[in-house]
Amino acid sequence: MAVGRFDFPNMPAVTGIMLGTICAGIKQTIRDDMVVIAMAEQSSCAAVFTQNAFCAAPVHVAKANLCHAPRWLLINSGNANAGTGDQGMDNALASCAKLAAVTGGQANQVLPFSTGVIGQPLPVDKIIAALPAAINHLSESNWEKAARAIMTTDTFAKGVSRTITIEGQPITINGIAKGAGMIQPNMATMLAFIATDAKINQTHLQDCLADAVEQSFNRITVDGDTSTNDACVLMASGCSLAPEITRDNQHYKVFADAIANVCKLLAEAIVRDGEGATKLMRIVVAEALSNEEAVRVGKTIAHSPLVKTAFFASDPNWGRILAAVGRSGVENMVLEAVQIYLDDVCIVRNGGRADDYTEEAGQRVMDNSEITIKIKLGRGRAIQEVLTCDLSYDYVRINAEYRT
Amino acid sequence: MAVGRFDFPNMPAVTGIMLGTICAGIKQTIRDDMVVIAMAEQSSCAAVFTQNAFCAAPVHVAKANLCHAPRWLLINSGNANAGTGDQGMDNALASCAKLAAVTGGQANQVLPFSTGVIGQPLPVDKIIAALPAAINHLSESNWEKAARAIMTTDTFAKGVSRTITIEGQPITINGIAKGAGMIQPNMATMLAFIATDAKINQTHLQDCLADAVEQSFNRITVDGDTSTNDACVLMASGCSLAPEITRDNQHYKVFADAIANVCKLLAEAIVRDGEGATKLMRIVVAEALSNEEAVRVGKTIAHSPLVKTAFFASDPNWGRILAAVGRSGVENMVLEAVQIYLDDVCIVRNGGRADDYTEEAGQRVMDNSEITIKIKLGRGRAIQEVLTCDLSYDYVRINAEYRT
Repeated sequence: MAVGRFDFPNMPAVTGIMLGTICAGIKQTIRDDMVVIAMAEQSSCAAVFTQNAFCAAPVHVAKANLCHAPRWLLINSGNANAGTGDQGMDNALASCAKLAAVTGGQANQVLPFSTGVIGQPLPVDKIIAALPAAINHLSESNWEKAARAIMTTDTFAKGVSRTITIEGQPITINGIAKGAGMIQPNMATMLAFIATDAKINQTHLQDCLADAVEQSFNRITVDGDTSTNDACVLMASGCSLAPEITRDNQHYKVFADAIANVCKLLAEAIVRDGEGATKLMRIVVAEALSNEEAVRVGKTIAHSPLVKTAFFASDPNWGRILAAVGRSGVENMVLEAVQIYLDDVCIVRNGGRADDYTEEAGQRVMDNSEITIKIKLGRGRAIQEVLTCDLSYDYVRINAEYRT
Repeated sequence: MAVGRFDFPNMPAVTGIMLGTICAGIKQTIRDDMVVIAMAEQSSCAAVFTQNAFCAAPVHVAKANLCHAPRWLLINSGNANAGTGDQGMDNALASCAKLAAVTGGQANQVLPFSTGVIGQPLPVDKIIAALPAAINHLSESNWEKAARAIMTTDTFAKGVSRTITIEGQPITINGIAKGAGMIQPNMATMLAFIATDAKINQTHLQDCLADAVEQSFNRITVDGDTSTNDACVLMASGCSLAPEITRDNQHYKVFADAIANVCKLLAEAIVRDGEGATKLMRIVVAEALSNEEAVRVGKTIAHSPLVKTAFFASDPNWGRILAAVGRSGVENMVLEAVQIYLDDVCIVRNGGRADDYTEEAGQRVMDNSEITIKIKLGRGRAIQEVLTCDLSYDYVRINAEYRT
């Protein structure tokens, strides 16, 4: 069950970026489970990868190939090619080599991505067999098909599109993502692919992506688990007629804000689809000494099973939120300076329950499916937001029953 | 439901330590909810307290009074006196003053402890009214009564007793604890009181307690939440005929090991009583570069909802354990060097599922209610153990329904 409604948007073409999908038969159901994305010559490509020390074979290969001016992404769902040892590396490399052979390109210009079950051999023969047809299907209009083909336990396809105008010329940004809440190392987990026709070199594109990911995918959590396969790619074809974007010119901020916005909306869609989620919780930590401090407090609350079960029960249990703030490891925090709000209702002030707080007011907020928890630390001016969802019976059911 | 069976032991007297319990009417049920512990003159007293920045009023008072040669502990269950502001401090101090007045002692020689609901005013009048009767009940034989009086959501009373002999003279160590898994800031949460008749000065006693807590209560977790009221006290009456123990003499290690053993068994009892627990998981991390590294890996596994739900489902899901090890933040970890065992069954070796592993062998271990997960990191010689329990439907139920 997802929180709220997410309709897949109309996604226009991004000139210079083509997508082809196919059912390679990796999953047990008959639906597309493989995507090839082709970038025009002269495209730039940036990427960030999981911080998990045990990253999957395709992550190793994609990281190594990022510096060779990538032209193709090869993505499969249904199998993560993780925990697969040397054979996993051989399989990832073999699939890249096959794509290069079919397209006449170079194997090191292919970035491979896999998501699905951990520890099973990648059915590389099926991928190789399906490659020519996937390439045959390449088109600029396949965004929704691609968003569906990369899904694993997701309950809906996730896509966002934005157009900005620079010196009268449009720049399109499309993004798709998969992930049911960063909570399944087994379905190893979050992948996001964003493409634009902007002209921007690889260095500046990488900076832009790193900033955007820090504000979006690094600010969501369902249960604190980080997968072996997480990756986010940003491609820029350079086909727009808008002037080149560099870190030094005034267009950069407009472009970077749009990229960050796309990433934030994709990240939010992932939390909405969090396994067992019944509530979307926006945790805003304000009046912190630094952004790091604000994020630390926000994530401590977001990871607290006690806070999350209270929200599942629609229980305005301020003691649990206060205790999570208190154990977040911020030094010299002053209890009396902390204020906590549920939406616009103040629940904690002056070291305890706010004098004017009523259970009815708290309950009214808790009955909503989207709730903002605002913490004012009374220490400084930094403010950051973390998104999470509640912890329900269904979370336990889905993750206890997943393999059985 | 608790994991395994825990029978309250016969606990002999600790000469010089007396306990008195009473029903003060703080809880809604008619059972003892208040304990006074009196120490003989010349006793030493050591204590460690919660690291939560927002600690409860009694914790502030107990910390401040620890340097005044404490003679009494005053403990109530049913109300945590946390998140109660200035009134909470006044109430904690008033109850200490009353105990001093009744006994003819000094108020700053009383250490107060509270556990129970957060954010409700402490019914200090009830405590004051009940104090004379509690003091009247003081006896060296009330250990089990005291263990029961400090319970909140615990399903069984927790006590451990050990006797050691030094130069032919016995030293007794008794300990009681409450806590259903460190998981209820609302029932704020873990208290442990340990007493011995050994002769040992306060400085050495504090060192001994700090070491023991680090190996025991700091190695258990149910959900990573730390309460506002956690405390552990170690009292030494000095009434034993055994020679004085100092850090420099050969008896210290024998004594310290016995204290650590008592703490470990109490800590294990708390995990067994973890809310919703159906399995006790011993996570042993070996071949680490340092103890800190071993604990870090162990706690990352212990806090992973994915690992915990898999154990609830009796699913030998090695991918989740491996992913947790990988995201624990240990630098330069080598996947190929890591080995993971469930009891004596190797499940991961050489970067993936062990060649000789069978699902049947894994399933046989997972069907037990007590399981050792052993991680060999292949990096060094440090080894540490962390205890936790699984994450079940009942955990969600208990914590979602707690206030409703």
